[in-house]
This record gives sequence, structure tokens and C-alpha cells, in this order.
Amino acid sequence: MKIGIIGCGYWGPNLIRNFSALDDVEVVAVCDRRRERLDFIRRRYPAISCLTVDANEVLRSPDIDAVVIATPVSSHFELGMEALANGKHLLMEKPLTATVEQGRRLIDAAEQKRLRLMVDHTFVYTGAVQTIRDLVVSGKLGQLYYFDSVRVNLGLFQHDVNVVWDLAPHDVSIMDYLLDRSPRAVAATGMAHVESDIENIAYITTYYDDNLLGHIHVNWLAPVKVRKTLISGSRQMIIYDDTEPSEKVKVYDRGVDVVPDGDEIYRMLIQYRTGDMWAPHVDLTEALHHVSREFYDCIHEDRPPLTDGQAGLRVVRILEAANRSIRNQGKVVRLD
Amino acid sequence: MKIGIIGCGYWGPNLIRNFSALDDVEVVAVCDRRRERLDFIRRRYPAISCLTVDANEVLRSPDIDAVVIATPVSSHFELGMEALANGKHLLMEKPLTATVEQGRRLIDAAEQKRLRLMVDHTFVYTGAVQTIRDLVVSGKLGQLYYFDSVRVNLGLFQHDVNVVWDLAPHDVSIMDYLLDRSPRAVAATGMAHVESDIENIAYITTYYDDNLLGHIHVNWLAPVKVRKTLISGSRQMIIYDDTEPSEKVKVYDRGVDVVPDGDEIYRMLIQYRTGDMWAPHVDLTEALHHVSREFYDCIHEDRPPLTDGQAGLRVVRILEAANRSIRNQGKVVRLD
Amino acid sequence: MKIGIIGCGYWGPNLIRNFSALDDVEVVAVCDRRRERLDFIRRRYPAISCLTVDANEVLRSPDIDAVVIATPVSSHFELGMEALANGKHLLMEKPLTATVEQGRRLIDAAEQKRLRLMVDHTFVYTGAVQTIRDLVVSGKLGQLYYFDSVRVNLGLFQHDVNVVWDLAPHDVSIMDYLLDRSPRAVAATGMAHVESDIENIAYITTYYDDNLLGHIHVNWLAPVKVRKTLISGSRQMIIYDDTEPSEKVKVYDRGVDVVPDGDEIYRMLIQYRTGDMWAPHVDLTEALHHVSREFYDCIHEDRPPLTDGQAGLRVVRILEAANRSIRNQGKVVRLD
Amino acid sequence: MKIGIIGCGYWGPNLIRNFSALDDVEVVAVCDRRRERLDFIRRRYPAISCLTVDANEVLRSPDIDAVVIATPVSSHFELGMEALANGKHLLMEKPLTATVEQGRRLIDAAEQKRLRLMVDHTFVYTGAVQTIRDLVVSGKLGQLYYFDSVRVNLGLFQHDVNVVWDLAPHDVSIMDYLLDRSPRAVAATGMAHVESDIENIAYITTYYDDNLLGHIHVNWLAPVKVRKTLISGSRQMIIYDDTEPSEKVKVYDRGVDVVPDGDEIYRMLIQYRTGDMWAPHVDLTEALHHVSREFYDCIHEDRPPLTDGQAGLRVVRILEAANRSIRNQGKVVRLD
Repeated sequence: MKIGIIGCGYWGPNLIRNFSALDDVEVVAVCDRRRERLDFIRRRYPAISCLTVDANEVLRSPDIDAVVIATPVSSHFELGMEALANGKHLLMEKPLTATVEQGRRLIDAAEQKRLRLMVDHTFVYTGAVQTIRDLVVSGKLGQLYYFDSVRVNLGLFQHDVNVVWDLAPHDVSIMDYLLDRSPRAVAATGMAHVESDIENIAYITTYYDDNLLGHIHVNWLAPVKVRKTLISGSRQMIIYDDTEPSEKVKVYDRGVDVVPDGDEIYRMLIQYRTGDMWAPHVDLTEALHHVSREFYDCIHEDRPPLTDGQAGLRVVRILEAANRSIRNQGKVVRLD
Repeated sequence: MKIGIIGCGYWGPNLIRNFSALDDVEVVAVCDRRRERLDFIRRRYPAISCLTVDANEVLRSPDIDAVVIATPVSSHFELGMEALANGKHLLMEKPLTATVEQGRRLIDAAEQKRLRLMVDHTFVYTGAVQTIRDLVVSGKLGQLYYFDSVRVNLGLFQHDVNVVWDLAPHDVSIMDYLLDRSPRAVAATGMAHVESDIENIAYITTYYDDNLLGHIHVNWLAPVKVRKTLISGSRQMIIYDDTEPSEKVKVYDRGVDVVPDGDEIYRMLIQYRTGDMWAPHVDLTEALHHVSREFYDCIHEDRPPLTDGQAGLRVVRILEAANRSIRNQGKVVRLD
Repeated sequence: MKIGIIGCGYWGPNLIRNFSALDDVEVVAVCDRRRERLDFIRRRYPAISCLTVDANEVLRSPDIDAVVIATPVSSHFELGMEALANGKHLLMEKPLTATVEQGRRLIDAAEQKRLRLMVDHTFVYTGAVQTIRDLVVSGKLGQLYYFDSVRVNLGLFQHDVNVVWDLAPHDVSIMDYLLDRSPRAVAATGMAHVESDIENIAYITTYYDDNLLGHIHVNWLAPVKVRKTLISGSRQMIIYDDTEPSEKVKVYDRGVDVVPDGDEIYRMLIQYRTGDMWAPHVDLTEALHHVSREFYDCIHEDRPPLTDGQAGLRVVRILEAANRSIRNQGKVVRLD
Repeated sequence: MKIGIIGCGYWGPNLIRNFSALDDVEVVAVCDRRRERLDFIRRRYPAISCLTVDANEVLRSPDIDAVVIATPVSSHFELGMEALANGKHLLMEKPLTATVEQGRRLIDAAEQKRLRLMVDHTFVYTGAVQTIRDLVVSGKLGQLYYFDSVRVNLGLFQHDVNVVWDLAPHDVSIMDYLLDRSPRAVAATGMAHVESDIENIAYITTYYDDNLLGHIHVNWLAPVKVRKTLISGSRQMIIYDDTEPSEKVKVYDRGVDVVPDGDEIYRMLIQYRTGDMWAPHVDLTEALHHVSREFYDCIHEDRPPLTDGQAGLRVVRILEAANRSIRNQGKVVRLD
């Protein structure tokens, strides 16, 4: 399978490295507008024959089977449509598109052309998130109560998108994958302290059925890096700390039970359980290896990928709603 | 000065211990409805002559100069009014009252009687908060951007009040003291997972002028104890972690500067500062020692206490607004 | 049972508090040379009838069944012998005595008088050490490889004993209890930086059969408090961190296996196991409660206590050997 | 300047990458006995013309100015002597040689040929160690009391050298650089639990004049990775934790002062200082960049490198003495 990669900023070289390492895949073309980025790639990967500033050279090349797009989100839709129009399978960097409408059209185009459309929700492919998913699916957590995620650090400020579009796709895609359901409504608050209209801090709340609550704090202006997610159920609770070198997932056998009071028949007592903590060994393989593998496999096996266009669309729907809520002073935005 | 203490639950014995340790203060009466609590106090403090289940014995005793009320919040107003009516100075446990209206009437009553009304915002009296206050006042943080506080742990579930009334008074009183201004508006979200109508998790957002944002996460259903506050300004940022044994306050010389781009005259560049971190030594004296001292001093010196009725009222106003917002699905509540 | 307590420094009040809380025990006498300490106790425990500066009033009182000695180690032997001579059961603060010879004579005296002699190896009674002991006894750790303990902080400098006599009794008694065997030899290094001849830092190595190694670092001159013990076996490893609020014991399913190389018959391969980590819930009851309970029970049930004179003697033997090694520039001291 | 690199195991590719990034340096030859390692390099660095299994092709090439040797320590001496004999400047991986005698002869050979001999004590070139060195040189720490370093993790077991030769060169070279003096004596204890005669755990003590003490714990069989060094002086103390992402160096304004007792003329009191903690921002540039730069510069400027043959020899002297002590049951080995 021959692959072309468009966009060589921070993430592009990682994509090139991982796809190059696959046995049955060849990276044959790389595109970026900045010639110095192409020179950088040329030195490291002299075997890549086509290094170009013109995306169409990649999108329209008859030699190429599949395209990976790792450009700023504003260009995702246009480049993606062109790729599909030219019969290329498509791996799109997160977030899938800048709007829900664009996402829908991209999915439709891929379906009509019977091409694979996958979104790079990288964290879904980490050993940590896979381990947590298994725990959630097993029912061991009991009824899910809340998902609370904090993703803060100093910079990197973006000039074209706010912190919601930049950092929250990670949390929202993890939340979507783990909870396996869509919120009824979204509310968000944000503030732009440095550049006007580019929020650098935001809080997003998602409301689900059955009192399940989601909450995300994303922030470019914090002194230290925090990547911490709490997932709490009626029987067990999980802390997922991605900055931990090895014990990334901790499962706590803790919670409360509501039991009848032996003395007073109409009264309920709350009992606390404070049991063991358990940190399952998680696969530390680079997630992008699994991403590139899955993209190859889903094409080769002619099946939908784990993170398909619909997954990408669900994430964009939440991001779009969050931004609408921010523009409306935190007003709740219903999703039907 | 002779003091009576009403309410001997979790906090009462600490109040008794600290007031007993003051030179010029004598704890002469303690009241609780539960006789076993009185027995417990009797064994430890045999010198306290009056141990009673009847609050009026304390409130109306001609021997008593000042009363400390450490009962559930629902009884604060009635007991407090009776104390003031009987000419006693009053130290009220936080939160001051269950409603803003009650708070106003308590303040009015104290003023009319020329009695001291103080609220026990304990954290304001910690070395950590005092150290941070000095930093904020000095202007070293630059323009304030946000205050973000997380106070979560497993239990203790309350049956009469939700997590907002139980835990958030700490964060709101710290925020009120450090930011030294009142929010324009409050929004909050909460969920009751265990007992109906008693929220066990809540997120509170406070909006101030000049883009300053406050956010508080309180939670009775988390697997581990977290007490972490971020205060971020344009020049420096602070992390206050109350669970740290000694380095509770860390000051980071980090942030971003927006500077003109040398090359392009209309463009601004964002530059990152990543300087030193500094953990000032903080006074680790028990805060309640300073609380009891301040109560004595403000009466003795005939001056308002550091945390007076107005401070208590400002906190209640935010708590009340947060609860109203929770009842209205997160709707923003304006404070005029 | 009527108890007298001699020595009211840092630890004495804790002993009084815990023994007072036992149902069948009455603390009837307390002795300290410093009258202000006795005043301190009088205020808190007005029911204690005998507060005296004369130890003999306690040791010889016909009313007293058992004596607890919490004085500096230099006086342990003399006071202990007098207590036994007067027919009192004896709980001795750690370390049992200042020399092995004294320890032997104390044990002999107790045996002759058929009195209980117990040493307060407090840490043995913690939930953490009990949990680790169960793991070691179960054989789950496999063959024991090493015990490594670090106990450092700033101060409290002692004037009469060095850091080995002050801090190492904790580690040595834990090691003795967990490993359940005695070392063949001891070596130690120490240095006195502040007061001549009072070492403030020391490293102690203990050699056991079967290549089992013990190592202890005690230090009064470290900037932060560390209480960390590693216990490593061929199958599992434990980290015991006493400064952790709740997850004090972590069990790691990690290690190496030596397996035959499939390709080369005479060669062995080392395989790494990196499995789960598990933090069992540990009982957080104050250890001194269990200590006081055990002292009462062993007298009442007429049986040896968990930490008897022999346990105290084994610890003193290692401490004495360590100090001899320090005086001889780290020379190995054999114990037969 | 044209460079050849011999040895392409774990470290070799890092050396190639860093030397390749220097402007005035060209990596022209790489040698390794394993052809798959050469293939690996060929794919990444197609511009390197000579990839060979024969070290002599590198050592004797007339095109090459300088050689970097990153092979197992057992071959350092022979390869290094051959490089010098052929007029090549030499950067040797740590430890310099397997014996003191070999180190001396290598230094002599370099001096006779007027060639540069540098040893890759990588940690000396980290921002953290440079920051600490500045603090020590400034005298702010006061009189130095001790250097205590712990370097433990699970694996990687070596088959040819023990943990002292594998891990301790890091600590010993840091200690040598920071303390800037040589120990009078060395003692060490080690144990081989997995492979006979290959110690997997060791404790090394170094004795300096003026009561300065050094202690190193190296261990291949610990459940978690620890890289922690304490450097304590009479006025300040430092904790250097290399596993911290950014705050690697913490300086504590803590210690004890011995002052005359106002009351008793012959008595001294110990006073504790517990001041601020300060984490200076440290340069996080990859140390190997500075290593490769220094090697180029010292040749180009015809001056000794920061870590010259003598530095390498001082480290080997301590390692050799530590191993002799281990073979003699911890006997102190004097260095004259």
C-alpha cells in the first residue's frame, strides 16, 4: 500500500516514522508548504521520492492508495474531499473537520466512494485507554457517575483555533470511546486572556442520560503539565494519569453503598467502601503504531476502522456545541 | 473573656481545644443535643462547669461574653439571632447562614447591638493563604487571569446539605479573600448520584470583571483526596496544594508575553517565559489558633475581625447563586 | 489493671492517651522530672491521682500492676530492673536497653519473676507492616533478596544518642519482624557533622544467609522527610512508603526469571516480568492502640507479647554492632 | 572534522545523531560487529559512506580525524590505544577503561601523541548538574556534609559487568565533578542474586577529608525507577531528581546552626532553619549535544575537554576500589 502524507508540522514526522515502519506500507509522498520542512524530511527519509509543496501532487497521484492529512483543521474538509474524490482512503488528523456539516459531507463522500475514512483519535489507541475501556465494558465500575478530565500546561498557543479545538479533542474522543454514548447537552465557559477571541482556558460540561456527567478542563496557561482523568462508577473508580511513566491507570475499589438502616425501616444508611487500589500493567507501545496499523488493516480487511468518520463526527459535534455555548455565556446547547 | 460553645460534632472539640489554650479566655459552657458528646467533653475538660443539651442555657447565661456556634447551617440564623439578642459577641461556623437574607439580618442585628460578628473561614487563617494573599497584593502575579480549585475526596456525605454547602465554603472564602472582589455572575452544575436532591458533585464558575474567571470542583465521590488550587496571573502562577506536608505553595515564574514581531509590524508574537519555581516557607501553625485569637482580639480591641459578617455574606451569596444555577440546569445567575 | 507511666516527653502523652482509652486499664500514676510536664498532664487527665517527679513512687507503689518506661535509653535498664524487682509487668520504650548485656539481664529478671516484658516496637503494630508480614509469610515474594530502608528528615538532634540509636530502631525492628531471621554480620558507616561524636548520618548493612542483604540509611540532616522501604524477592517486590496518606504499601508483580535459552543449551536468558501493581488497603488504626492492647492482653492471657524481650534484644544486638562498626571505620562485625 | 564511531548498541545511534547535527562535523564511518545494526544505521543515515564490521577500517582510515568508542568496557583500552596510535583524537564512552592501569596508559599515549582524550561523562553536561555545580562553587551550600545518590530500576542486566560498572559511573562522575576532590577511601557491598558473580545490587561509600561522606546505591532489581541525589551542606541542601520532567533541582534553605546557649556558657544549642525551597530553571537541552560540541571544540581550540582522561581515570579508580571492596566483604580500600 502506498501512502501520501500532507502536513509536516509537529505531528507529521511521527506519522511518517510510524507508517514507514510498517511492513506492507510505503510512504511515497510528503507535502508541506514550508520547504524547510521538506528538507528536514528528505535528510531523514531519502527513499521518499515525492516531496512537494503542492497538495494536489499527492491527492491526485495515481500511485497513491491512501492519504493522511495532518494540516490545520481549517483545511481538513477541502483536502479530505479532494482525496476522496480521487479515490484515496483517508486518515484525518483530529479533529475530523471544523464543523459538523463538513464532517457529515466527508462521511457521505467516503460512503459513496466505498472508501475508508478514519480519524486519528490517537489516545483511543493507547494501552491505558484500552485497559480502561475493558474495565468499563466489563461492568466492574458499576453504574457510571462522572468523567472528569484535566488537560493543562503552558502553551503552545495556536493562532487559528482556541484551546477547545486544540486540546479538548483528546478528552472528548477518550470520553466518547469510554462512555460509548452521546451527551444530551453541552455547556462550556472559556476566556481569552492573551489574544482576543482565542480562548486559552475552557471548561466543558456534557450531560448524559441517567445522571452521568462529563467535565473537561483545558488550559494553555497553567504552570505545570497535568493530564488527569477521573472516571467514577457506583462500584469502582479510576484515575488515569498520562504523565505517570508506568502506573498510568489506577483502579480503586472504593465507593458508597446505600443500605437499609437496621433500626429505622424507612431510613437508608450510606456505607463507605475503602478497598484496595490496583494498577494494571498497561501496554506502553506508541499509540501511533496502532493507529497506522489500524488504518492499513481496515483498508486491507475492508472493514470500518475503530475510530471511523462517525467517531470523528461525534467529537466535532461536542466541540462545536461547546464553542457555541462559550459564545453564549455558558448557555446549555441541546444535542438531539 | 468567658465563652460558650454550641455544637460539638466534628469541629466543636477543635474549637474548645483552641479557645482553652488562650490565656485570657475561659470556655465556661458547651452545648450539644447528644449527651454522649457532652460526656466526651466532660472527660477531657473537667473544668468546664456548664455542659448542657439546652442551647438557651448558653445563649442566655449572664456569665458569658461571647458565643461560638458550630451547629448545622440550618440552625445558624436562629441561634445567632438569639445570641446577639442576649448581647453576646458571635463567632459563626462557615457558612454564615443558609440564605443571603438571613445573613443580612444577622449583620444588621450585630451592628445595632454593637456586637462583634465573625465567621470562621478557617483557611483564610492558614499560613499558606496568608502567603498567597501577600503575593497577590504585592502585584507580583500581574493581572489576575483565573482561580481554579479542586476539593474532592470520598465522603463524608451529609444528609441535610449538598456538596456545595459542605465543601465549597472553603474554596469560595479563599477565593473571596485572595481575589478581593465579588463576581458579576455565577453558574453551576451538580449531580446527585446517591441520595436524591443531595448533589455529591458540583462545578461552580464565577465571572468577574476584566476577564477574571473562577472555577471550583467539589466532590464527595472521588477515590483520593485532592486539595489543589491554581491562581494564574499574567506574570506569575501559583499552585497551592494543601495535601503537601510542607511545600504547600509553589510560585512559578512562568507565563506568556505578547510582543511586537520585529519582522512584521502589525503582527504580535507570543513568547513563553519558563523561569524558576519557588516554594516560600509557610507558617504551619494550626489555623484555628489564629481564628480563636482573632475573635478574642477583635472583641478586646473593639474592631471588625478579618473575616466579618460581610465576608460571610459574600460567601453565602455565591453559594446561594450556585445552588440556584444548579436547580436551573446551569443557567447563569447575575449578582448585582 | 493499674498502670504507671514513667517519662513524659514526646511519646509519653501518646502512651497515656492510648492506655486511658482501654476499658480494663487505668492509668494511675505518671512520673517525669520536669514539673511543667506533670502540670501539662494534670490539666488533660485530672483523674490521674499520682503525678510525681520520683520514679520510685511509681515503681514501688503496691497499687500498680504494670509499668511503662518511656525515658531516654540510658535509664531503661536501671528503671526496668527496679520495676521487675517490685513485681511489675514492663513495657519498655524502644530500644530495649543501651547494651546487649543489659537486655539479657532484663529478660532473665522478667523470666525469674514470671513477669511480662514487652518492648514498644511501634511500627510492628501498624497495618502496613502487618500487611507486608502476611505477604512475606505467604511466600508470594519468592526468595527474599534485599531489604532497603531510608528514614531521613531534618532534626530532631539528640544530645545523648546518635542517629543510629534514635532512628534505626524503627527500621531494625521492622526488618527483624519481616525477615524473621537474624543477620550473620553487621557493618556501618556514620559521620558527625554538627556535634562531635554524635553521628547525624549513618548507613547500616546487615548480612544474612542465602545472599539476603539489609541496608538502612538514617539521617537527621536531610531537607525533606523520607520513610521508604523496599523489600525485594525473586517473584514480587514491595515499596512501603509511610509518608503516603493511604497507599502505604505497593506490591509489584515484577522481577526477572532466569530461563534456559532455547537456542543454546548451556546458556541462560534473563527475562523481565513487568506486571500489575497492587496497593492493598491497610488498617490505619493508630499503632499505639494495638501496642497498649497487646500489653494488656499478654498480661491478662499470661502469654508472651508479639514484641517480647527477645525481639528487643535482637534489635539492640544489631544497633550495638552497628555502632561498633562505625567506631572501627566500617569494619564488619560478626554476630554468632 | 571527520568522525568515525565504533559500537552501535544502545548509545551509538544517539552519538551518531548528535554528531551528525553539528555543522562542522561529518560522521563518515560507523562500525559494529552486528550487521543488522549497520543496516539500521544505513536506513537512517544513507550519507555515511563506510559501514563496517571491522574496527580497523575506522581506526586506520587516513580520512578520519577523531574516533568515538561506544563498545563494551572490556574493549575500550585496546581500541583506544589503536586509535591514538593512528593519530586519532578520542572520545571514550564511560567508564574510560576496565582498570586504572589501562586508564593511565591511555592518558600517557594521548599526551605523547598530543591528541585529545575525552570521556563521555554525559551527566556532567546536563543543565541540572551544571546548575548544581554553580551552586557548590558559589559556596552557598556552606561546608559540604554528604553526597547520597540512588540509581535503581528493573534491568537491564548485563552479562559481562556488574551493576557497579554499569550504573555507578553516572553517580561517581557526577560526584567527582560536583565535589571536585578525590576520596581517601572507598568501601562497598554488593550481592549477586540472579547470575553468579554479577552483582545486581551494590552500596558504595566514599570517604573524603573534612568528614565529607559519599554514598551510592545502584540496583538492577528494583520495581520502579529512582534517580535521586541529595547533596547536603551546612547552609543549604539540594535534591536532584532526574525523573522529574522539569523541576529536577530543588534547593532547600534548611539546616542546623550550632549557637552558644545564652543561659549556660559552656553549652551549645542546635537551632533549625526551615526556609524556602527554590527550583531554578535548568537547561533541558540533550546532554549529548553538549558532549559532542565539547569534543569538537576541545580539538578545534586545542585545549583539554571538561571531562578529560584524568576525570575518566578518577572515576575508574573509585569503581575499581569499590569492586575490590566487594570482593573483600566490604573492607575499606584506601586510595593514596
